[in-house]
Amino acid sequence: QKRKSLSTKNLLQRLINGDKVALSQSITLIESEQKKHQKLVDKLITSSLPHSGQSIRIGITGVPGVGKSTFIEAFGKMLIRKGKRIAVLAVDPTSSVSKGSILGDKTRMQSLVNEKNAFIRPTASGSSLGGVARKTRENIILCEAAGYDVILVETVGVGQSETAVHSMTDFFLLLKLAGAGDELQGIKRGIIEMADVILINKADGENQKAAKQAQMEFKRALHLYPEKQSKWAPKVKCVSSLNNDGIGKVWDMIESYKNKTIENGFFHQNRFEQQKFWLYDSLNQKLKQNFYDNPKLKSKLKTYLTQIEKQEISSFKAADELYKYYLDLLNAK
Amino acid sequence: QKRKSLSTKNLLQRLINGDKVALSQSITLIESEQKKHQKLVDKLITSSLPHSGQSIRIGITGVPGVGKSTFIEAFGKMLIRKGKRIAVLAVDPTSSVSKGSILGDKTRMQSLVNEKNAFIRPTASGSSLGGVARKTRENIILCEAAGYDVILVETVGVGQSETAVHSMTDFFLLLKLAGAGDELQGIKRGIIEMADVILINKADGENQKAAKQAQMEFKRALHLYPEKQSKWAPKVKCVSSLNNDGIGKVWDMIESYKNKTIENGFFHQNRFEQQKFWLYDSLNQKLKQNFYDNPKLKSKLKTYLTQIEKQEISSFKAADELYKYYLDLLNAK
Repeated sequence: QKRKSLSTKNLLQRLINGDKVALSQSITLIESEQKKHQKLVDKLITSSLPHSGQSIRIGITGVPGVGKSTFIEAFGKMLIRKGKRIAVLAVDPTSSVSKGSILGDKTRMQSLVNEKNAFIRPTASGSSLGGVARKTRENIILCEAAGYDVILVETVGVGQSETAVHSMTDFFLLLKLAGAGDELQGIKRGIIEMADVILINKADGENQKAAKQAQMEFKRALHLYPEKQSKWAPKVKCVSSLNNDGIGKVWDMIESYKNKTIENGFFHQNRFEQQKFWLYDSLNQKLKQNFYDNPKLKSKLKTYLTQIEKQEISSFKAADELYKYYLDLLNAK
Repeated sequence: QKRKSLSTKNLLQRLINGDKVALSQSITLIESEQKKHQKLVDKLITSSLPHSGQSIRIGITGVPGVGKSTFIEAFGKMLIRKGKRIAVLAVDPTSSVSKGSILGDKTRMQSLVNEKNAFIRPTASGSSLGGVARKTRENIILCEAAGYDVILVETVGVGQSETAVHSMTDFFLLLKLAGAGDELQGIKRGIIEMADVILINKADGENQKAAKQAQMEFKRALHLYPEKQSKWAPKVKCVSSLNNDGIGKVWDMIESYKNKTIENGFFHQNRFEQQKFWLYDSLNQKLKQNFYDNPKLKSKLKTYLTQIEKQEISSFKAADELYKYYLDLLNAK
């Protein structure tokens, strides 16, 4: 009986019927490091693919304290009232336990957790961003097969995680707080370029004036960037997740983004570009891993680094020799 | 007789004696695609290494028309008057002939070309940035072995060439013109972060007011970036290469940069980091080349891309299978 419940066919059927338990079980399989589970996952993903792709995938980033979970709750409940089914995933390598990931602490999205039409899953496990990203992308496919219309993928932005989330979503949302005036200071490089909308959160009570000011400064900054490939002009809006202020408009905006980019062809072109990106990214990771993780090569590399530091050999010559050594190793197998 | 003049020992001896003809010959060898020349170059570089490293390497970038050659002439002649020997190299992949590289057109630096203590060499040949960069780095080593104190490496900034130049120099200089007010608009991403100084060129005559304004705007922009690892606070200065205005001060600044970064350890640490960067960069290039240039793999990759587009396979599964195929190919050899 148990074995049967883990068959691909059974899982897929239940997934397509929107069975939350099947979705959880499938994701648990993705998390598993066991070989036999991996094979099952491969089959499950492949057979889920034709049922995937119809959702809108939204990336959400913002530093801890910006109010991501409150925003996601307000946003998610609004969508559920509109009859949508929403899934919340996360990409935070190494953070799942130790760094107090928002989603690890499910109590903070309590009102959403209990909704029939919401599915919340903490960040995939794994210490490398590549591994976490792969699992999250696979989770997206499963969530879509299970009929979720809106997939939120959040990150607190450790290392390159925003880039990873940006590369697997259709729309990228940056949450900010109004600060002490110099709004752009301290913003991570490249984040502004990725954002399709910047939301100044907690624009309520005494914060409203500062929020308006921040909004102006970000608008000015966005002005300096070249036009996006999507032809979408990024927006800056003030919202209050607490008072549910402006939340509905965010969804309207995302819908008009989707319409515009489907019409001009960017939406699907971008998804294919993302698939290619992940293909090449995985391939390059594998190539490097196979090289740099080779124990013989590791010690050889160390020797060369010492020689380089002593100016005994140039970096290029060292690379030539190391690579030749690697090919010899492969051929000797 | 001719064969003798191409021996490593002979070339090296003449190089160390500061013989310009030997330097030219050596660089021509680097440019050569012949296997026997490559071997000679390898030896020459290795034996030049202990005699290299004592110069200051300055990267210079700026769009065509910004006055790079006029600046380099004014800057170079000032250095020669101070008793320095200067070498001017360039990194502009594919541009050497067709795009009218400044250095290809030597007549534009006529007064410098005729100086005994100046050595000017057009950009290395090659269509890939990696290839051009390697040759230029090797040229730097030879120029240093030949006793040049100041190495200028210029680029017009095609593709990633600024990053390449930045990764082989100690100090990075960005030339700009005062524009129509919105100075930051259109500046390539990442360039500002690399600059140790931004020089507003042609700050003469009617341009002076606009130059001062541009200077202020850039200062404001620099303020937004986090402190550099070198602990050097980037400067913004107005210069007139035409009137020789401010040129001497640029050198004073570079000297104080060198003193500061030698003292805090960044100077040499950075050079070692650069060497490591080029080692890893070359290795990664080789790994990718060997993979993606494989004809069998190329056609297999094409098939998988079609399958991915049709949603028949996930990017990750495709990567797994392609990589397995590659390993099988290697083992079958």
